[in-house]
Amino acid sequence: MAQKHGTPAHAKRVFQGKIFEVWQWEQKMYDGSLQTFEKLKRPDTAQVLATVGNKILIQTEEQPDKQRSFPSIPGGRLDESEAPLAAAKRELLEETGYVSDDWVLWTAIQPVHKIEWTVHTYIARNCVKEKPVSLDAGEKIETRLVDFDEFMRVATEDSDFYSPEIVPDLLRMRLSPEQQQNFKNLLFGDL
Amino acid sequence: MAQKHGTPAHAKRVFQGKIFEVWQWEQKMYDGSLQTFEKLKRPDTAQVLATVGNKILIQTEEQPDKQRSFPSIPGGRLDESEAPLAAAKRELLEETGYVSDDWVLWTAIQPVHKIEWTVHTYIARNCVKEKPVSLDAGEKIETRLVDFDEFMRVATEDSDFYSPEIVPDLLRMRLSPEQQQNFKNLLFGDL
Repeated sequence: MAQKHGTPAHAKRVFQGKIFEVWQWEQKMYDGSLQTFEKLKRPDTAQVLATVGNKILIQTEEQPDKQRSFPSIPGGRLDESEAPLAAAKRELLEETGYVSDDWVLWTAIQPVHKIEWTVHTYIARNCVKEKPVSLDAGEKIETRLVDFDEFMRVATEDSDFYSPEIVPDLLRMRLSPEQQQNFKNLLFGDL
Repeated sequence: MAQKHGTPAHAKRVFQGKIFEVWQWEQKMYDGSLQTFEKLKRPDTAQVLATVGNKILIQTEEQPDKQRSFPSIPGGRLDESEAPLAAAKRELLEETGYVSDDWVLWTAIQPVHKIEWTVHTYIARNCVKEKPVSLDAGEKIETRLVDFDEFMRVATEDSDFYSPEIVPDLLRMRLSPEQQQNFKNLLFGDL
């Protein structure tokens, strides 16, 4: 388990923005002197590897401040006091219209040293389309189902893939046939 | 080349901390409405894959706010108006006492979507020890030379390795003998 990126209890919030909070504290150095240390907090995020039969749901997404579209998986920020799994279910339904009753937490990663921020990645098996998508004014998202090899290709070879924090684990699977088979079993069950 | 993470020209700085600046702007949504978008800027960093003969320099580092030591490579933040290569040379000298006259930029990566921050990774070949290390009050660093396989093991398998932004490229090399050989040639020259 990687070292946790946290702020000490005596840290003070010095700024609160729309997404980011800035926290500072006096940190004792190795020679006994003090320095002001700084870290950020931001809402955790939850994202979903959603499967339908032996296919994985992948998105082509646009955002208003980006020049071009990029591949992604469903996901987004947790609402205030929302649990990660609840956020994953909500984002999957909003962005794709799919639901599942078979969820498992695959990884929880803190991708950046100086930010208190955890990315929760869930696997949602046997998804079923329940209703049309309902996108925010700031979202343009198209979804499609791809097979495992195509998913791995997009996620590990397209440098615009929007979830870089899971790429090392996916690459490690390409190095280990056993790990890759276990991952496939997680994604698709007994298919 | 991955999409650049930048802020538009009309963005305004709303907070300046010790490391991070917070910037906001009014962004037009797809339905014509406006929302306040937010991004961060922080000083770019430069880090070094330093080689001596057929060995790579790796560090065991402690920081005052972390519970345990972690493996790292020499590097740090650019000083104000300092060029990336100058910062890489300065950090290598300060943290390890080594110099090189054979530098090449290996990668320049923006690791986080919402932060304007580039991590420059240089290769410094045929390093020579010039003087004793000179560490900050906030640094405890020990250096050692390891062979290529040991470097790859630490960098791609130890979850505490401090430069996660280069891990995907290192894993891709483990998948491609040809890429790995090219990388070794870059690191060690004609050895």
